[in-house]
Amino acid sequence: MVQESSASAPAVLIAGAGAIGSFYGAVLAHQGCAVDVISRSDHDVVSARGIHIHSASLGDLSFRPRQVLRSASDCRHPPDYLLVCTKVLDSLDPVAMIRPAVGPDTVIVLIQNGVEIEPPYASAFPDNDIISALAFVAVSRTGPAEVRHKAYGHLVLGHYPAGLGDAARRLSGLFEAGGVNCTLSDNVVSARWEKCVWNAAFNPASVAGGGLDTAAMLATDEGEKMIRRAMAEVCAVAAACSYPQRDGLIEDHIAGTRRMPPYKTSMALDFEQRREMEIEAILGNVVRAARRENVAVPALETLYGLLNMIGATRDDSAGRG
Amino acid sequence: MVQESSASAPAVLIAGAGAIGSFYGAVLAHQGCAVDVISRSDHDVVSARGIHIHSASLGDLSFRPRQVLRSASDCRHPPDYLLVCTKVLDSLDPVAMIRPAVGPDTVIVLIQNGVEIEPPYASAFPDNDIISALAFVAVSRTGPAEVRHKAYGHLVLGHYPAGLGDAARRLSGLFEAGGVNCTLSDNVVSARWEKCVWNAAFNPASVAGGGLDTAAMLATDEGEKMIRRAMAEVCAVAAACSYPQRDGLIEDHIAGTRRMPPYKTSMALDFEQRREMEIEAILGNVVRAARRENVAVPALETLYGLLNMIGATRDDSAGRG
Repeated sequence: MVQESSASAPAVLIAGAGAIGSFYGAVLAHQGCAVDVISRSDHDVVSARGIHIHSASLGDLSFRPRQVLRSASDCRHPPDYLLVCTKVLDSLDPVAMIRPAVGPDTVIVLIQNGVEIEPPYASAFPDNDIISALAFVAVSRTGPAEVRHKAYGHLVLGHYPAGLGDAARRLSGLFEAGGVNCTLSDNVVSARWEKCVWNAAFNPASVAGGGLDTAAMLATDEGEKMIRRAMAEVCAVAAACSYPQRDGLIEDHIAGTRRMPPYKTSMALDFEQRREMEIEAILGNVVRAARRENVAVPALETLYGLLNMIGATRDDSAGRG
Repeated sequence: MVQESSASAPAVLIAGAGAIGSFYGAVLAHQGCAVDVISRSDHDVVSARGIHIHSASLGDLSFRPRQVLRSASDCRHPPDYLLVCTKVLDSLDPVAMIRPAVGPDTVIVLIQNGVEIEPPYASAFPDNDIISALAFVAVSRTGPAEVRHKAYGHLVLGHYPAGLGDAARRLSGLFEAGGVNCTLSDNVVSARWEKCVWNAAFNPASVAGGGLDTAAMLATDEGEKMIRRAMAEVCAVAAACSYPQRDGLIEDHIAGTRRMPPYKTSMALDFEQRREMEIEAILGNVVRAARRENVAVPALETLYGLLNMIGATRDDSAGRG
């Protein structure tokens, strides 16, 4: 299961080797990239036996990283691509985390949830290319350095703040060759808002409902009405931020959700497992953008107030590795 | 612990002999009233040994009802006062429940939560006096026919829809003599709205937060902001319904809540114990009034959507006795 990096394949560093980072890192490793990972908590396991990963659609993707680093400061050669796959949490400062590994030619690739997550990277690394990417993937960590890829995998990615760019094209080509569908977007920030229209409504509601799945959230007229109102508010904020969303997006999101089997949002899963939730990336950043742009978002404000109450009652400050 | 009814004391029937009904019934029994109770689920226990009730401030209030009825249709002599002390639940039709016991001179006394709960009684019993009453009391059922009165007890009551009236004065006199503070209100509906400003904000938030106490709900700026917004919306609905609330009410509610020890709302307790919640009386009726009066209440609508989602995932249709 050890891959040799081909001379022409780029060197990749994965920051945040959880389920998402392991999956996309594995795909690149199988394309011949030299893949290093930063892993604090699973360092010894990953060093000893690599990352085991089984994909329902792609088969065995297990791989042994070229190097397993405890932190970015152990990185001696800056990578060509640095994939940031951590959750976006108040307790994590990903800019500080990756800084020692970022060289002048390193392309920073953000595979993360939420909106307005790029600016900290853009101001910390003004001369680096940044690729913003959205993952539509069902993966889960089943144990230390053990990951299951259950479904999907699609990436939407583009140069940040806009455009395509050679770095994004090249990365997309590698993923596509590895069986991961990619959509290159010349307006990836707008794509983030589109995904956020779903996320900022369903994720907080699933938590405020005590861990509800999508079917439960759409089971009553009043519940669906609330979801639609929250979605409409996100659309209004997106438009005020110069990323107007297409007509019919809300209908499509609702209909698409009804077609899928009932499932729990990532935030509901984090809530139930008492892990820190991505409240700010998914909801707080929308609320702050609304306040900045003077858009009234009372439904989102209400959900945000509730999630702040919930967050304050939990001790989620445990570090992640 | 058996009381004899004095010739001049009124006959009283308690519908809903839970904690609230037992407490206020006990006070009247100790004032010499002939108190009957309707009790389905606890019928045999109450018949055998009466209702045991200990009050922190008033001492032993245990009493043996004159009659324990399984339903109102077992009532042979309509009471002077019929106290409706049930929770206001979708699964209960209190009008149908009490109808067989309502005589032409029976005064119907509603000791219940919520707003706009009186109209069903007013249209079913247009010729009867109706007294609307708000209980500020901490009582709990500790077992079958066992109740603990922990604190408070204050009643605000008045003739419905407005005015004082002899029936309210007389009842108030009996309660006062029994150690229960009463405030007669000639605008009791406005008093209901005042209490609802608190209830419609804190009760739903406590449930949507997963069972939060008052301190947790006020622990963060965003949480407090949300509570204040919900309260302001209730004030706007009350004003549109011709019950404008006084300036400073929200400040007073927040400050008063901060002064009290942290506590869980009745809805949070019902939620945690998987009992049916008074969603409609406390919140749904406010939302419907807002829609009727064309008042925008997006925070309340959001909370209402969440509570509908939560309600739909629970089987709370079990009957109550």
